[in-house]
Amino acid sequence: MMESYSPNRLKKFFSPRHIAVLGATANNQWFGNILANAFETGFDGRFYPVNPRADEIHGLTTYKSISELPDDTVDLAIVIVKSSIVMDTVGELVEKGIKNVLLVSSGFAETGKEGKGQQDTLRQYCKDKGVVLMGPNCLGFMNAPEKVSVFSGRAVEGTLIPGGVAVIGQSGATSEVITTKILKKSLGISLYITTGNEAIVTAEDCLEYLVHDENTSVITGFIEEFRNIEKMKLVAREAARRKIPIIILKIGSSDKGKKAAVSHTGALAGNDAVLDGFFKQVGIIRVETIEELAETAAVFSRWRLPEGKGLGICTFSGGMCGLYADLCEKYGIELPQLDEKTLATLKALLPDFAQPDNPLDVTGSGFLHGMNEIVRALVEDEHLDAIVTVCIPPQGEGDFFSPIINESFLPLLTTTTKPIVPITFREMNDYARDDFKDKGFYYIENPDLGLKALAHLINYAEYLRRLDG
Amino acid sequence: MMESYSPNRLKKFFSPRHIAVLGATANNQWFGNILANAFETGFDGRFYPVNPRADEIHGLTTYKSISELPDDTVDLAIVIVKSSIVMDTVGELVEKGIKNVLLVSSGFAETGKEGKGQQDTLRQYCKDKGVVLMGPNCLGFMNAPEKVSVFSGRAVEGTLIPGGVAVIGQSGATSEVITTKILKKSLGISLYITTGNEAIVTAEDCLEYLVHDENTSVITGFIEEFRNIEKMKLVAREAARRKIPIIILKIGSSDKGKKAAVSHTGALAGNDAVLDGFFKQVGIIRVETIEELAETAAVFSRWRLPEGKGLGICTFSGGMCGLYADLCEKYGIELPQLDEKTLATLKALLPDFAQPDNPLDVTGSGFLHGMNEIVRALVEDEHLDAIVTVCIPPQGEGDFFSPIINESFLPLLTTTTKPIVPITFREMNDYARDDFKDKGFYYIENPDLGLKALAHLINYAEYLRRLDG
Repeated sequence: MMESYSPNRLKKFFSPRHIAVLGATANNQWFGNILANAFETGFDGRFYPVNPRADEIHGLTTYKSISELPDDTVDLAIVIVKSSIVMDTVGELVEKGIKNVLLVSSGFAETGKEGKGQQDTLRQYCKDKGVVLMGPNCLGFMNAPEKVSVFSGRAVEGTLIPGGVAVIGQSGATSEVITTKILKKSLGISLYITTGNEAIVTAEDCLEYLVHDENTSVITGFIEEFRNIEKMKLVAREAARRKIPIIILKIGSSDKGKKAAVSHTGALAGNDAVLDGFFKQVGIIRVETIEELAETAAVFSRWRLPEGKGLGICTFSGGMCGLYADLCEKYGIELPQLDEKTLATLKALLPDFAQPDNPLDVTGSGFLHGMNEIVRALVEDEHLDAIVTVCIPPQGEGDFFSPIINESFLPLLTTTTKPIVPITFREMNDYARDDFKDKGFYYIENPDLGLKALAHLINYAEYLRRLDG
Repeated sequence: MMESYSPNRLKKFFSPRHIAVLGATANNQWFGNILANAFETGFDGRFYPVNPRADEIHGLTTYKSISELPDDTVDLAIVIVKSSIVMDTVGELVEKGIKNVLLVSSGFAETGKEGKGQQDTLRQYCKDKGVVLMGPNCLGFMNAPEKVSVFSGRAVEGTLIPGGVAVIGQSGATSEVITTKILKKSLGISLYITTGNEAIVTAEDCLEYLVHDENTSVITGFIEEFRNIEKMKLVAREAARRKIPIIILKIGSSDKGKKAAVSHTGALAGNDAVLDGFFKQVGIIRVETIEELAETAAVFSRWRLPEGKGLGICTFSGGMCGLYADLCEKYGIELPQLDEKTLATLKALLPDFAQPDNPLDVTGSGFLHGMNEIVRALVEDEHLDAIVTVCIPPQGEGDFFSPIINESFLPLLTTTTKPIVPITFREMNDYARDDFKDKGFYYIENPDLGLKALAHLINYAEYLRRLDG
């Protein structure tokens, strides 16, 4: 492991206040995006555009050359010049004493052999000089808690709010979609990083940083290739020790997907089956889609780890019972038999024709007989470590049905350490969303994604227990 | 096969204009629901509530007994009395000459041995007398094209609009969710039927009817058990002959799911693996979730069957290329090598560093070089039978980016018989939804569900070709 990219060094890298921009022009779309994003993030530092042919760009005082920049001030340089002059530019930055570089420009390893040669030369130079360089062929990063954004894309939809979820993407566009979907789930972001071709700073370096980052509680990543499996192993161990889940969408499970990864960021995609085994061994959670990644990040952010593997499910539709049971089997979730005591309680509460089981169908009229007691009985069942229970989005003011169902578990949320996960099969509207937010409870909407994410939570908790035991 | 439930007989059953209601009271929630649904559907027939202790209910003239109902008028009786008097009630209806019965009441086979005995007695009686009986333990049906709704649930969200998708549910609540999700996809419904315990009319009977129904082009169903596999085989054959896809969400792939099905509608859930093989043999499309069912119904409703198995994918994100390729492999979709001619065309159009392949990454700047020509080249490629191509939801008026991308395929929609399926990875807002609707194109939003649904379309087309060949 190289000391120059230690978490401490990266902490400075990710918190610049004085930022030079090489290749800044009034028409450069990347530069425009960088300023727009910084503005939205509430950046209170300063940009120093460098351009030999301008005095001012977008109202910012402009410097003719790198040598004219103030001494000992700039703590990050963004390079968006064309690839042929990147090498010279980085050389001048080093001479000026600027050794934190965000290289947005593309035209390196992703373009083939020649580009790879240029990238190798650049890498060697940066290693020799101790330059921390992110990129080439990346979009930059957004650090919401520090109000820093040096990000050249504009496809993240929604405002970045600070929170516990970190996003690492080797791909720019794809990671913008991931960040958007995470924001859509009302989750906050600790740090959003795109690493591109990773000439120097790799996804592994960023993961290591994030595992130690006090703002981060859940790490997500879109990965085309891991370049340093040994480092990943150490990072994953430390993450497990700190109970920070690492959720990875790794493409390349198909030959076509692998090929796409190679031509995209020049990745050596590796043997997927081996990697899959490695993930399981070190407790990295692998997901298959962006939607599953966002749902899993939400589940880990919102519910504590269960203390065992048993899930109890409560609903009032027999059809849903069957559907949920099939999905649980598909995702390896255990639905234990209910305890004798629970069965007795439920038999006393439910109509005669109801047959208490797990999943539990309280039937279409059963909820009228004390839904609160029913859910409490499940929560108190010693065979169950987590509960999924039906919730109903209210249609509007004065909804009769919704409170009966939702009040059945709300009082229990504060009196148990077991995760209680409300699930709805009704459509959510804005009124219901606001109502649920006001009442302070989270829920899952899509049983397929939700139960798959819950399986990740349950299995991760089990993984940590095995490590301990 | 029993003649009494022939498609012709069922056609009359599903189009009543004069409807008696046994067990109607002012406070009965089921009756209230039936009237509310009929009102919303625009029903122009008449209800005849029967109640010995009322002259009028909800403004409707009420009859003291079945014998007092007008002769030769009532074409359907809805029975919502308690289970203990169902048998007598059906007997009186038969005496009055009313042999179309919708039995909403529960308390039969789903409650155990005794209830099963009562249901068997009822079944035998109906068989002997030629009664077409739907239920017990069902919600009823909605026939949107005929403006008839005899439906005792109220959980379908959104107004039923007439269209080509039929829904059959053995489960009431679950099928209400299915119908809601289908309406949410802006699809219209031809007939929505819940069959419950199926003492007489079975899902197979309804499927047979729907295969011959001129309003229905896609059949969907939530099934806990098929009771007559021989009939299903004949129905599936006829459906294939008419190119009417049958999309089934069949629970019971897990032991727990099977058990839930049994206690729910008294189904004998059968051997799931055998049933799976049967489905493949007869071309029934099996789905795993309600969301997949709705997406598959949408894909079949909106795109014609491709003439071969080769899919081409076009996007401008390398990460998405890998993601889509992995999903295609997972769902068995073939992504053929592009034709030499196509490769030459693409090389001329795309930037130097782009590497034409399938999936095609036109790169972040490639779309500026003639996206229209790029998509046209894929459409004209002889190896490709269907195209998935990126579309961009506009953020609002004057969006620069969105039209460039969307105009790339819009002109092609009318000049090719190959399905062109736009896919977006951006968030949809109301403006974009309206814009896409105005422009008259459909799209898929979720790559996982969308590509899985597309796999069903491609495989179904292949199945039909094998039958022909």
